[in-house]
Amino acid sequence: MRIVVAPSGFKESLGAEEVADCIEAGVLRVLPDAEVLKAPMVDGGEGFTKALVTATDGEVRQVEVTGPVGEPVEGHYGFLGGDGPRTAVLEMAAAAGLVLVPREVRDPSGTTTYGVGELIREALDDGAEQLLVGCGDSGTTDGGAGMAQALGVRLLDKDGKEIGRGGIELERLASIDLSGRDPRLDEVEIDVACNWHNVLCGTRGVARVFGPQKGATPEQVERLAGALDNYADVIGRELGVDVRETPGNGASGGLGAGLSALLGARLHPRYEIVSRYLEVESLIEGSDLVFTAEGGIDFQTPRGKIPAEIATRAKKYGVPVVAIVGTVGKGAQINHEHGIDAYLSILQQPCTLDEAIENAGELVTVCAEDVTRLVMVGRGLTENVALG
Amino acid sequence: MRIVVAPSGFKESLGAEEVADCIEAGVLRVLPDAEVLKAPMVDGGEGFTKALVTATDGEVRQVEVTGPVGEPVEGHYGFLGGDGPRTAVLEMAAAAGLVLVPREVRDPSGTTTYGVGELIREALDDGAEQLLVGCGDSGTTDGGAGMAQALGVRLLDKDGKEIGRGGIELERLASIDLSGRDPRLDEVEIDVACNWHNVLCGTRGVARVFGPQKGATPEQVERLAGALDNYADVIGRELGVDVRETPGNGASGGLGAGLSALLGARLHPRYEIVSRYLEVESLIEGSDLVFTAEGGIDFQTPRGKIPAEIATRAKKYGVPVVAIVGTVGKGAQINHEHGIDAYLSILQQPCTLDEAIENAGELVTVCAEDVTRLVMVGRGLTENVALG
Repeated sequence: MRIVVAPSGFKESLGAEEVADCIEAGVLRVLPDAEVLKAPMVDGGEGFTKALVTATDGEVRQVEVTGPVGEPVEGHYGFLGGDGPRTAVLEMAAAAGLVLVPREVRDPSGTTTYGVGELIREALDDGAEQLLVGCGDSGTTDGGAGMAQALGVRLLDKDGKEIGRGGIELERLASIDLSGRDPRLDEVEIDVACNWHNVLCGTRGVARVFGPQKGATPEQVERLAGALDNYADVIGRELGVDVRETPGNGASGGLGAGLSALLGARLHPRYEIVSRYLEVESLIEGSDLVFTAEGGIDFQTPRGKIPAEIATRAKKYGVPVVAIVGTVGKGAQINHEHGIDAYLSILQQPCTLDEAIENAGELVTVCAEDVTRLVMVGRGLTENVALG
Repeated sequence: MRIVVAPSGFKESLGAEEVADCIEAGVLRVLPDAEVLKAPMVDGGEGFTKALVTATDGEVRQVEVTGPVGEPVEGHYGFLGGDGPRTAVLEMAAAAGLVLVPREVRDPSGTTTYGVGELIREALDDGAEQLLVGCGDSGTTDGGAGMAQALGVRLLDKDGKEIGRGGIELERLASIDLSGRDPRLDEVEIDVACNWHNVLCGTRGVARVFGPQKGATPEQVERLAGALDNYADVIGRELGVDVRETPGNGASGGLGAGLSALLGARLHPRYEIVSRYLEVESLIEGSDLVFTAEGGIDFQTPRGKIPAEIATRAKKYGVPVVAIVGTVGKGAQINHEHGIDAYLSILQQPCTLDEAIENAGELVTVCAEDVTRLVMVGRGLTENVALG
């Protein structure tokens, strides 16, 4: 039996590698002789840098940057290994991730991607010739304005004064001055791994879709959506670029828009980037069963989340897919139509989210064991029927 | 595909029939053509009377009795249908069940089985020639003392005065006077369906094993254990019966002991009684898969709980067993050694027990769907392997 384990991490709990190890342990409790191939997955979010650096035998560098609420945080970026142009890789979540926003101050109106710009500057200082930026797990909704400000872009109000940090300030944006932008940016190519389903504006825009889970009240969501509308208007008028509903521009609270419009970056669906470095499809081909995993499965999962991407690839080869999840959310059953044959929550008892997070490792292991047991029940069933 | 659904009820939540309906619904979502045979199970606890009455086309009667904390409660008993001696059936939980003890006053030191005696008296008034008593789901630890008192047995302290109600009063028991016992009890045969693993005294005695889940503090547990020791001593001395560690005497907080020693009842393992009336084994034979269910699975499940009884029978015929459970408790993995191939919690999100109880129906349905999906993944696996 050949089993591929290709999970994402559980946000604020377990990294993808830890999840993969736990699933492997659970499978081996039931099938000690199974061949388990682990392929911990990343999207553009947490773990993007380390996963790509590890895959290419590159290096990671620590650096202090400005966090999403203005406090200094320990960020990191890396350089890919191998020949070719010197390519820096960084994830926005390392400087502006949701996990860096203390729960009691979760208000995406004021959080900033300023530290992401600082990471880019550090990489340029370090001699980067190309940049690979991962989006995902953001705690910001500032359209990448802070990132641009950190790199010398001036965002001005109607009086020609610079606006402050945070998405809500974009309400007051009247013009953009690119003259002070770090000149090294003219020389480097920037590729961005985005959730392709994320757009900046409109009813499916980032403020409305992700604002609530970043802690915004309904009123804040609408103000933020208005601020991003104004941002898109000014960008369209001054730079001639339409960032409103172009795929990927909404990634990481609109960071995609800032990177593309203000820095000239190229946006890509994140799995196009990730799959250049992480080989999962070749593992899936010829396997009997694929485990994937996600902290929470819901109606958004088919919109570019890891389990859905894994399922899409597994279906090409007719391999069944089981997802182990922390929580089952609204509309999760849609995933059955997207190649996930079954999904199962790790929970075993009434508990709080914090308790679930604390015990996540053991719960994932036991859940993988249970799934394997049930699959083997089914397998035996056919044997019985065939024999009987 | 022939699937037997033989669940117990979920305590304080869903009856066994409701659980069976929910599991059936979940299975049919995945396998609309499956043949689902429902056999909702009871032990001697909640549902015992109605299940046996239904199975024999008998009748149920409502009657007000004294509840476990002294307040009147709406109890019931029944008469089995069919020919033969007029047989009354009653469950102790209808008059003294844990569900009748308000959560805020859960203290098994003071709760009484007095109402159980009243149910027996009502059945005798109604012409019962035989009595069938179900034990289980009790909220009492009084050794059946209250039940005996309600039928005229006098339990006396060292001054010859009657002790009060509740297990803790048995500390003061000095002698037993059977002279006033309802004389009709000499004429009827009483059979009792007991959990055969429950004993009255010792380290595995009812006070220590079940006291805590009935709400007793560690100090109350030890006092109760001491009171039951004294009760057993007096019974041994005055009636020449050893009820200390005989199987079944600990059933329902020691009601088994009271019924056997003070009323001359015969105790039986509960499934010997239940299986006289509910035919599950014949359904299991020739089926492909058995679903069972329990509110909580843990290390106690193999000690005579329904999923373990079902698993034992299924194993005789080599049929796999999956248990759907509300919560997975301490030491649950022991059940894998007792014929339960896999068990799965219905929970999908962090929640409170009350929330889980409120949504139990839908959660059971979805869980049965998930199990069926996973079993079918396994079934397809072999097909692939066989074809490949």
